[in-house]
Amino acid sequence: MTDFAATRAIFYIPEGLVYLDGNSLGPMPLAAAERVSRAVAQEWGEMLITGWNRAGWMAMPRRLGDRIGRLIGAEPGSVVLGDTLSIKLYQALASSLEMSPDRRVILSDTGNFPTDLYMAEGLMKTLGRGHELRLVAPEAVERHIAEDVAVLMLTEVDYRTGRLHDMARLTARAHAAGALVIWDLAHSAGALPVDVAGAGADFAVGCTYKFLNAGPGAPAFIYVAPRHAERARPALQGWLGHAAPFAFEPGYRPATGTERMRVGTPPVLQMAALEAALDIWEGVDMAALRARSIALSELFIAEVEARCPDLALASPRAPEARGSQVSFRFAEGYAAMQALIARGVIGDFRAPDIVRFGITPLYIGEDEIRRAAAILHHVMENRLWDDPALRARAAVT
Amino acid sequence: MTDFAATRAIFYIPEGLVYLDGNSLGPMPLAAAERVSRAVAQEWGEMLITGWNRAGWMAMPRRLGDRIGRLIGAEPGSVVLGDTLSIKLYQALASSLEMSPDRRVILSDTGNFPTDLYMAEGLMKTLGRGHELRLVAPEAVERHIAEDVAVLMLTEVDYRTGRLHDMARLTARAHAAGALVIWDLAHSAGALPVDVAGAGADFAVGCTYKFLNAGPGAPAFIYVAPRHAERARPALQGWLGHAAPFAFEPGYRPATGTERMRVGTPPVLQMAALEAALDIWEGVDMAALRARSIALSELFIAEVEARCPDLALASPRAPEARGSQVSFRFAEGYAAMQALIARGVIGDFRAPDIVRFGITPLYIGEDEIRRAAAILHHVMENRLWDDPALRARAAVT
Repeated sequence: MTDFAATRAIFYIPEGLVYLDGNSLGPMPLAAAERVSRAVAQEWGEMLITGWNRAGWMAMPRRLGDRIGRLIGAEPGSVVLGDTLSIKLYQALASSLEMSPDRRVILSDTGNFPTDLYMAEGLMKTLGRGHELRLVAPEAVERHIAEDVAVLMLTEVDYRTGRLHDMARLTARAHAAGALVIWDLAHSAGALPVDVAGAGADFAVGCTYKFLNAGPGAPAFIYVAPRHAERARPALQGWLGHAAPFAFEPGYRPATGTERMRVGTPPVLQMAALEAALDIWEGVDMAALRARSIALSELFIAEVEARCPDLALASPRAPEARGSQVSFRFAEGYAAMQALIARGVIGDFRAPDIVRFGITPLYIGEDEIRRAAAILHHVMENRLWDDPALRARAAVT
Repeated sequence: MTDFAATRAIFYIPEGLVYLDGNSLGPMPLAAAERVSRAVAQEWGEMLITGWNRAGWMAMPRRLGDRIGRLIGAEPGSVVLGDTLSIKLYQALASSLEMSPDRRVILSDTGNFPTDLYMAEGLMKTLGRGHELRLVAPEAVERHIAEDVAVLMLTEVDYRTGRLHDMARLTARAHAAGALVIWDLAHSAGALPVDVAGAGADFAVGCTYKFLNAGPGAPAFIYVAPRHAERARPALQGWLGHAAPFAFEPGYRPATGTERMRVGTPPVLQMAALEAALDIWEGVDMAALRARSIALSELFIAEVEARCPDLALASPRAPEARGSQVSFRFAEGYAAMQALIARGVIGDFRAPDIVRFGITPLYIGEDEIRRAAAILHHVMENRLWDDPALRARAAVT
């Protein structure tokens, strides 16, 4: 059983803040500061170039990839770190399309995060072979899985509403139609139990700065199902994905397995923060985390719905159909969120009208949930959002 | 005039070490440790998600890009940070090929760093339109520039020998033949004066962990000539290269200028180290740096050639034809370098037989050069490389 009072003490949360934006950027694990300082001073400073061997930097993308793999149900050796989610998605998609040369449709949904769609669009233009990105409503995905679909590309948890796709069911349906499946786990890894191997996913990608708490700009990861690993061609074939990078051969030979998806020099300082952040997960039972996330989410929905009639639940009402966030719709949501932030409750806003709250049991409990709901009620009841200065603030994140 | 005694004090170099590998990984600027700690504790820790605005994280790729731009003669706004050199090269090459739809040849040389060639090979396979990567000897590049060349893709300074291409001349020749030019500045930025705008380069890419001293895994940069910036299509079109990333539109619209080459979330901790490293360059006169680099290189060559007859100079003899490194050929170079490292002189080895020494005047002076030559002499005279244990050591970097 996970002790959530203990995990909370592992994070630094500024005094008085209710932080409900861990689905965008997780807070700092206290050990991360020390671990990064060590990577800078003791590793880079003292070891210099020899750190690639002596401090194990070169092996980190695989070693930390395996630790993430355990959180998403991946086979050992099937996950590697690096780059950003956009880049890893591109590799997964390019590999998938190459493995399905006779099909031309990429099926996705309108709830997918835009960068996934933009990267797909860019790849299709580069390919110039008449691929189509077919976007349907999230609830219509299953019935649009057809024999012309090369790859089903979905984000498991919708970044706006928190709606959760049924990974196992959709993967099975896609496979039955002869399509491959790529899962974007940006809002899943560290948020809820994931079982990519059990679901039979072909590829998965994710980031580590949200629920995994690895810090701003932390590296992404990619999962390649072992059955594909020896034939997946990384479109972005960099030297660290070569079978023998330090032989400096003129021609490319892919490394064994998922390591071929490595591209260039990995971000050592960011990986150090990630390493500290992953230590926290060693003691976390994902089923217990999920149960706690649902309990806190239900409490938040009940509190808000009881007090704030102008906020309409945008997330699915059934807990099993949600990820680890709760969203509401409100036309003046942007200004309302600004008013909330000014009062020490941090969530965020997604156009056109969504206010989002991340539910992260590792460092959020009933007290924070009740406090957030009370302050939200105060903002709504007093129409504190009705302030031109708040509306005028530039939205950046 | 740059005071090289003063710049040396800005770096941390372990006691007793002669570090001649700054062309692979620069040493730690003392301010980098403090700056990274601040990014972790005061920015990530205290500001959390609001750091994207309040700490200026989101604007760093452009702001730091401009600071690098000043070191390579780029126009303001024409350089942006992000990803790795491999990724940035892919974007430059994909854009170039798209701008030259009627030509099929990528001309490069056998001295180019392998990842550039691997990425090109990967792109050609993805395109599937019969492109050819034509590799010629470095000295034969000029005469192979022909009317079928779409893009000339070169690394200015050869990573093994240090041979320096004539950027202005080759760029002019390529343009006369109707070809575009991409310059890889991995061993140029911070190593010698570069003038991408003056030379008329179309694209340039580089890394920041070598002569710019930004730490292991520091981000890369890309330069797009302003004349191309509005029509270059980034093959890797991620959300942060979108004209309005936070509008979360379903379709991609490129940002203005080089910022469209941004892809995903930038590595904030690595950028913090880079920011501290770039402060050092504010006071450095690149002509003075170059003069000092040449003086130190000439001294090293003279000392080694006078004492170590078994080492054959692999770098060009004429200083104006070299970058900021000196290389020698020796059949047992790998073991010799291991013996040298064991005695506190760090250079590196590149297969099959090259021992490399980076010349970095910001923190290396005559004393280190003489000491390195004396220890190298000791290793060679006593055949200390003739040791099976040294030969057996795994080569990783």
